[in-house]
Amino acid sequence: MFRKLVAEALGTLLLVCTVVGSGIMAVNLAGGNNAVALLGNTLATGAILVVLITVLGPLSGAHFNPVVSLVFRLKGQLSNGQFAAYVTAQMLGGVIGTVLAHAMFELALMTPSVNIRTGHGQFIAEIVATFGLVMTILGGLKYRAEAVPTLVGLYITAGYWFTASTSFANPAVTLARGLTDSFAGIRPIDMPLFWIAQILGAVLAFYAMGALMADDELS
Amino acid sequence: MFRKLVAEALGTLLLVCTVVGSGIMAVNLAGGNNAVALLGNTLATGAILVVLITVLGPLSGAHFNPVVSLVFRLKGQLSNGQFAAYVTAQMLGGVIGTVLAHAMFELALMTPSVNIRTGHGQFIAEIVATFGLVMTILGGLKYRAEAVPTLVGLYITAGYWFTASTSFANPAVTLARGLTDSFAGIRPIDMPLFWIAQILGAVLAFYAMGALMADDELS
Amino acid sequence: MFRKLVAEALGTLLLVCTVVGSGIMAVNLAGGNNAVALLGNTLATGAILVVLITVLGPLSGAHFNPVVSLVFRLKGQLSNGQFAAYVTAQMLGGVIGTVLAHAMFELALMTPSVNIRTGHGQFIAEIVATFGLVMTILGGLKYRAEAVPTLVGLYITAGYWFTASTSFANPAVTLARGLTDSFAGIRPIDMPLFWIAQILGAVLAFYAMGALMADDELS
Amino acid sequence: MFRKLVAEALGTLLLVCTVVGSGIMAVNLAGGNNAVALLGNTLATGAILVVLITVLGPLSGAHFNPVVSLVFRLKGQLSNGQFAAYVTAQMLGGVIGTVLAHAMFELALMTPSVNIRTGHGQFIAEIVATFGLVMTILGGLKYRAEAVPTLVGLYITAGYWFTASTSFANPAVTLARGLTDSFAGIRPIDMPLFWIAQILGAVLAFYAMGALMADDELS
Repeated sequence: MFRKLVAEALGTLLLVCTVVGSGIMAVNLAGGNNAVALLGNTLATGAILVVLITVLGPLSGAHFNPVVSLVFRLKGQLSNGQFAAYVTAQMLGGVIGTVLAHAMFELALMTPSVNIRTGHGQFIAEIVATFGLVMTILGGLKYRAEAVPTLVGLYITAGYWFTASTSFANPAVTLARGLTDSFAGIRPIDMPLFWIAQILGAVLAFYAMGALMADDELS
Repeated sequence: MFRKLVAEALGTLLLVCTVVGSGIMAVNLAGGNNAVALLGNTLATGAILVVLITVLGPLSGAHFNPVVSLVFRLKGQLSNGQFAAYVTAQMLGGVIGTVLAHAMFELALMTPSVNIRTGHGQFIAEIVATFGLVMTILGGLKYRAEAVPTLVGLYITAGYWFTASTSFANPAVTLARGLTDSFAGIRPIDMPLFWIAQILGAVLAFYAMGALMADDELS
Repeated sequence: MFRKLVAEALGTLLLVCTVVGSGIMAVNLAGGNNAVALLGNTLATGAILVVLITVLGPLSGAHFNPVVSLVFRLKGQLSNGQFAAYVTAQMLGGVIGTVLAHAMFELALMTPSVNIRTGHGQFIAEIVATFGLVMTILGGLKYRAEAVPTLVGLYITAGYWFTASTSFANPAVTLARGLTDSFAGIRPIDMPLFWIAQILGAVLAFYAMGALMADDELS
Repeated sequence: MFRKLVAEALGTLLLVCTVVGSGIMAVNLAGGNNAVALLGNTLATGAILVVLITVLGPLSGAHFNPVVSLVFRLKGQLSNGQFAAYVTAQMLGGVIGTVLAHAMFELALMTPSVNIRTGHGQFIAEIVATFGLVMTILGGLKYRAEAVPTLVGLYITAGYWFTASTSFANPAVTLARGLTDSFAGIRPIDMPLFWIAQILGAVLAFYAMGALMADDELS
């Protein structure tokens, strides 16, 4: 179990480090064009997800995301204790990821974000974003398991653009992004609404996909 | 059959939601550079197509497109009734996709587009776009079936740039894009010409590829 | 043989249509930023290559390129007559591709380009570009045949940026690009130097890769 | 062995040629927007890595990187002599790559860079960058060997954006980039710190991944 938790922490660390670091790099270079900045942010995040899930998946399942672990808890593949340990490792790894990104860019190691991300549009967006992510994972695992790393990378690539919130879709990453006053940040006060939406989206997808994929004898 | 229709509606919903939502996001951020906006729109659309076709394909075939269903009708793999049901589910899902994108971005839920898309160039472009899409699907299914999701995603990635119409190539998506006054929109009055071109391109590709791939004993 | 030639013509047609069409679209939208324009041009070209080679490869080999056919002639897999027929089909398809792109964008169907592409840098660049393309194809065919479509798409994606000529690497596409006064164009008077460089690069790669891959018993 | 060294030199040559050449092209076209320039640079580098590792990997292992060869030395798969020969071939190939890129763009064949890349942020960034690269390679080789070319291409795609140094992560490429006064350059005086960080990151990853992947019987 210890190595699984190390893998979860390391993966979430590198994921957050990529999300935050590429956001800083992109804004530094983009001369005020935020669409260009988001292109760089997207490319980096989508790419690292494929790498991390492929390389660390065989060790821990490569959740890197408390609501993904929640789904595996609901499926009965994690016990309550394992679930709690996974979430703790993800949270811890995520926070260290922000610190490491800041260290590379020679910024204060933690600064609360002032990026306002609130309102009903953002709430709906995070439900949609997380629904889609869990749909991708569950459908991928059932029908094309070896493609799951690529599918998740591509899903988040799309999510950065089509959801109004840019698809955080991950409570541990949300927490870590609360601690960076940069492109990828989110005001700490806006985090709870994101968490609620993420849990709702994940649970909704779990039951919807369960019903949809229940039986392969389609008529 | 019911779950097939749910899969078709859900897939078309998320496809349209991505096309429309990423267009809104892109224009919001791109500072007037429409090529940068189209890059974001392209990346999101290409990526989500790979995901949706992989994950929902085993359930319904993942047409998400009335002219694709028409091709399967022509191949005899759908009855008239099934074809009508598929098209209805796609149309319905597409419209809900526009509504959901608008909800996420806190816009009025439906607004007729004022984007002018007409003229003989657009008509030719939609014939080419749909011809290429159906060629990709039929050739892919025959020679590399497991690659079809990727091939379709890549084809539309190219189509967004090389066809003058940005490759709608899909009557249900065209309808749904008539209801958004944003980057991805099309004036409702311009839709019928697009539909005709899409049907022409699909039927042309069906017969052309049938002749071209008729027999593997090439001399 | 007839269907092989149709496949070669159709593939080259759609390749050129993509190169030329996406260049027009990109410049129309990019507001003078040619790097943004080249990003759109690159994305479209790389993507369509994967599609066309996958879908038409089983029919004709998907050369779409006279120097690639030359390499297969050198390998003894095409007769002189077949080689001549392939090249003719590619040239014809390429020219129609330019015409079709112009028709979609409502431009005069053919206009000689005035883009100056000459000098020793361009000459070296086309040798490098074509060397790399043939290296990719021969190495890919030997070591990972099913990946060749993707490898060629990725190689040209890189070539658009790292070679000073943006990697034409294809005499039929060069000819077709001589007939478009747009982003992708080349002055007709500059074409012969490109053709010579492309033949040199291809032949060089044929012999170099032949020597390098001659024997798998590496010590 | 001779052909292995040719493959290492050729691969590093084309890799550096792509890194340097695409940087020159990108800056020439990007009108001062360095994020757009980095997008072009990233796309080209990620794409060529997939191609080169796939095509030359079966010949030499496709290290193209002294610290990757160091890792294989630590694993006992290269002797001291082979390691020295590999590194020499990589250094030589890399330098020729810079020269060739300059020749294509009609620049002086070698010019020391004046790009300042120093400070503790850069040092940390190169440790992280190289750690991640070696983690990707070792995890990829163990769990999904056929995906290693793609994984390395994607990892560097991300690394260009999320590490403050843009992930040189390669002493031979660092040396070659010292000789170009262009986008990709690094002041020669800043190179030793990069080399030290790269060795540290690689060795750290070697031992960390060794411990993490030691035993597949995870509890």
